[in-house]
Amino acid sequence: MTTHLDSAVIAQQLAHKSVRQFLDTPVSDAQVERIVTAAQRASTSSNLQVWSVIAVRDPARKARLAEALGGHQYIATAPVFLVWVADLARNEALMRAHGAESETLGLIENTLIGAIDVGIAAQNALLAAESLGLGGVFVGGIRNAPEAVSAELGLPRHAFAMVGMSIGVPDPTEGTGVKPRLPLAGVLHPETYDPERWRSATAEYEGTYEAYFAGQGHPGRSWARTVIGRLAKIAGMHGRHTMRASLRAQGFDSE
Amino acid sequence: MTTHLDSAVIAQQLAHKSVRQFLDTPVSDAQVERIVTAAQRASTSSNLQVWSVIAVRDPARKARLAEALGGHQYIATAPVFLVWVADLARNEALMRAHGAESETLGLIENTLIGAIDVGIAAQNALLAAESLGLGGVFVGGIRNAPEAVSAELGLPRHAFAMVGMSIGVPDPTEGTGVKPRLPLAGVLHPETYDPERWRSATAEYEGTYEAYFAGQGHPGRSWARTVIGRLAKIAGMHGRHTMRASLRAQGFDSE
Repeated sequence: MTTHLDSAVIAQQLAHKSVRQFLDTPVSDAQVERIVTAAQRASTSSNLQVWSVIAVRDPARKARLAEALGGHQYIATAPVFLVWVADLARNEALMRAHGAESETLGLIENTLIGAIDVGIAAQNALLAAESLGLGGVFVGGIRNAPEAVSAELGLPRHAFAMVGMSIGVPDPTEGTGVKPRLPLAGVLHPETYDPERWRSATAEYEGTYEAYFAGQGHPGRSWARTVIGRLAKIAGMHGRHTMRASLRAQGFDSE
Repeated sequence: MTTHLDSAVIAQQLAHKSVRQFLDTPVSDAQVERIVTAAQRASTSSNLQVWSVIAVRDPARKARLAEALGGHQYIATAPVFLVWVADLARNEALMRAHGAESETLGLIENTLIGAIDVGIAAQNALLAAESLGLGGVFVGGIRNAPEAVSAELGLPRHAFAMVGMSIGVPDPTEGTGVKPRLPLAGVLHPETYDPERWRSATAEYEGTYEAYFAGQGHPGRSWARTVIGRLAKIAGMHGRHTMRASLRAQGFDSE
């Protein structure tokens, strides 16, 4: 049996690369609205719709955010910076209006729902943007300074900025490529989890990774060093080791 | 200025509906591999690639999972049930092999990265599946019984099943529609967060929601009651109030 394995959607997905340099071409409100509408159509746990998104265009605000997060130029220079917020404030207000309790909001299950549903929605948004000729990059750096972000954006209790996203028309001179990933066998397990699958895949990937970056003019890179730099020591976390307190300050007690 | 706001990608996104009834038509290994390859192309925090996916086809295993999670028929009857796992075990093994420490794995920041990146990857996978004529549904119910799921799938420490996904060829007689969402103004905030935007949007949505379900043969439904049923009381959580201990048992201490 032959089944087709190609579609315009998959072609768009396979062509993804993060874009951090943008032309001056503006991104219209209509484009942002279309992108967020696409995000809304994605699945949401029990239809709770526990996210909001803030579209930042004001150059001064973008500059303040970029500085607070550690100087990411692609926040300040993007025409639009989207901030994806896990948002239980809307649900909480609705429950309060009906005289219902909110026993569960401080439990980590609802932090997980917020994080997963933000990921689902934001990915639909980025792919929609790419399909319209725009490009962008996820900015996990939004979590480098949660208190500053919450203050800058006026986030109420039960709203927490999970991830940012710079959006604009890609500058074709940026020249980054499609970064290689782990071999499929390293992430896809039939029936049950088998660590043997990724032992060889990880070793193979080191070579692919080094060759890709050498081709980009950065010889000597190593995936192992990337992982170690990011996960081995608390010093590599850009201040995110206090995330639990930051979440709690916004009502995501995560118990 | 007119810019185009349509694409094959956005058309696919806007047509999304969750599918819980499947034809007997099989889903091939090649289709699963293509779908997971599309998921791999999505962004991943610092290229850490902290997820794995398990493709369950064995009818006995699907039946055990369905029963453990509370009897979801659409797990047992789907040709393939994908389990999306936040997976730091691969990174941990890599660090250990290089004699590096793993100071950060117990911090909630890395639980968030796992949850967000699973959401990003899984959404690419579901949209890719839909673009190939398949359909499916996210199964948050995978978190109803984390210990049973970890045991059934052989998950090691630092691997946690975040969300499931039934995949198959949609049964056209299922007849569900495209569920309405909150008005755009209720989720998209320009520049800063403004609760006034969703106060009116939430009220408007109650009418849309009731009308949609009445048209589906279920009159009298209310979004407020859905939210209250799911978030007001711990009893509505299907056992997920102990999620923190379940995460900790898999090495996601989430401190």
